[in-house]
Amino acid sequence: MARLDDLSSYLIAPDPAADRLTRAVTGTDQTGAPIDLRVIEERPLTIYLNGQEIVTAMTIGDYPRYLALGFLRNQGMLRADDTVTGIDYDEELETVVVRTASKTTFEDKLRKKTRTSGCAVGTVFGDMMEGLAGVTLPDMPLRTSDLYALAATINRTPSLYLSAGAIHGTVLCQGARPLVYMEDVGRHNAVDKIAGWMHHHKVEAGDKLLYTTGRLTSEMVIKTALMGIPALASRSGFTAWGVEIAREIGLTLIGRMKGQRFVCLAGEDRLIRDADPAAIPDEPARAGRKAAT
Amino acid sequence: MARLDDLSSYLIAPDPAADRLTRAVTGTDQTGAPIDLRVIEERPLTIYLNGQEIVTAMTIGDYPRYLALGFLRNQGMLRADDTVTGIDYDEELETVVVRTASKTTFEDKLRKKTRTSGCAVGTVFGDMMEGLAGVTLPDMPLRTSDLYALAATINRTPSLYLSAGAIHGTVLCQGARPLVYMEDVGRHNAVDKIAGWMHHHKVEAGDKLLYTTGRLTSEMVIKTALMGIPALASRSGFTAWGVEIAREIGLTLIGRMKGQRFVCLAGEDRLIRDADPAAIPDEPARAGRKAAT
Repeated sequence: MARLDDLSSYLIAPDPAADRLTRAVTGTDQTGAPIDLRVIEERPLTIYLNGQEIVTAMTIGDYPRYLALGFLRNQGMLRADDTVTGIDYDEELETVVVRTASKTTFEDKLRKKTRTSGCAVGTVFGDMMEGLAGVTLPDMPLRTSDLYALAATINRTPSLYLSAGAIHGTVLCQGARPLVYMEDVGRHNAVDKIAGWMHHHKVEAGDKLLYTTGRLTSEMVIKTALMGIPALASRSGFTAWGVEIAREIGLTLIGRMKGQRFVCLAGEDRLIRDADPAAIPDEPARAGRKAAT
Repeated sequence: MARLDDLSSYLIAPDPAADRLTRAVTGTDQTGAPIDLRVIEERPLTIYLNGQEIVTAMTIGDYPRYLALGFLRNQGMLRADDTVTGIDYDEELETVVVRTASKTTFEDKLRKKTRTSGCAVGTVFGDMMEGLAGVTLPDMPLRTSDLYALAATINRTPSLYLSAGAIHGTVLCQGARPLVYMEDVGRHNAVDKIAGWMHHHKVEAGDKLLYTTGRLTSEMVIKTALMGIPALASRSGFTAWGVEIAREIGLTLIGRMKGQRFVCLAGEDRLIRDADPAAIPDEPARAGRKAAT
């Protein structure tokens, strides 16, 4: 399969140059000398569903409509068949209102207060787990040549992750092509923005792979499965429950992807090992990456 | 000041060898060969306050009592002057019940649903911000020689962070001495466990420093200030709002601490630059560290 790593192939790529996403600050370095850096913005965004305040997310502030839509989808407050009649974003008030044709069941959902690991305290976890019962993920072939091509492209894509650090990135991919690369201060926001984009554009999920800079926690695995995406890959590590859930629902879980190395802990059957790992160059140390720890 | 980096100086050190905290899993590597690894556990822990269910946290499962106590403290659901009459942990039910002499005001708190960046969705953020109004942080002198000594000790302390990765560490420090080193899947849990330990043992906060492996987000800055700790240091990066809040409340904020390098973006006035950065050895590349991204 042809390696496709033209950055222009992105439908949405990060915009590290956007002024609004970072702020210039001055401090002192270890010698006491003044030092200028650009640090990531965090802005509150309050999400409403039909006039009911649901949550205030801290976000870098790009794609507020996709974030709101994806958050409500991933929380099960908005169903695939709910008709969204409008999404109103007010930059000054820092609010997004998602309007649906019919009322939703969010109030019951909010009664369950669950705090998940990593970056999703407040996720309605009980519901997410229940939601998995109906999920079956398709047998999409997953070529290791595509995996390596994706990692190579994503790792050299100009991003806030590379330029400012302290941020998470999540990329929706198809074959060897990264389609939508979202970044945010919270991993959950980056994933929710992708879910919102997919919902808005009615994008097929069964032939996609989700790549994340973050850990493969139970929450990431569950969200990926709920989105209908059969494969999740990361350069970072695993948690035991993330692995357990991936194995139960048949999601292909690949972690510690660096250079030629990777580990597959679930859904091995989807892998088509058509690439020679020995032919893949190792990453330069750290590859200029600043992890969002 | 004497450099103090004897690991035995910890009151609580990580226990990477504890079976309960990691699980052995087998997968395949990039060549298709089987590979065994140990991955971090995530366990649900449901926290009750006087018989009222508050939240279910995902945690590695050590120090459940400190986690419950610290969570309730940092959420403002438990005040410094509330008398804790008992903390009952049931390992089988995975629950902790914190009992107080008088009723608390948690229900009002829970009405405010706020989702913060990084790892604290669900944090009652409005209250945390309000809580800052009363906070004044003492003028503790902060020696750069102590900072370097702490980093050297913490970076070579055997931990899950070093052995399994995909985890966050937070260390309560005094002078050049790391006192309590907590780790967890979520940064907020590690901080809450320290807050719980401090509350339980009535530990003075004004002469302490908090070191974290994680990002210096608004949430980390606010929690540190609410705990009464005047300084927060990290090997990771900053967010703009974290810097802004630290400057407003006069908290010393130090980030990007690696080898001889660090950046101070707030509370510079506490720094006593008594160490020669040039004399500090640089870290070996990655220093075997696995970031919990």
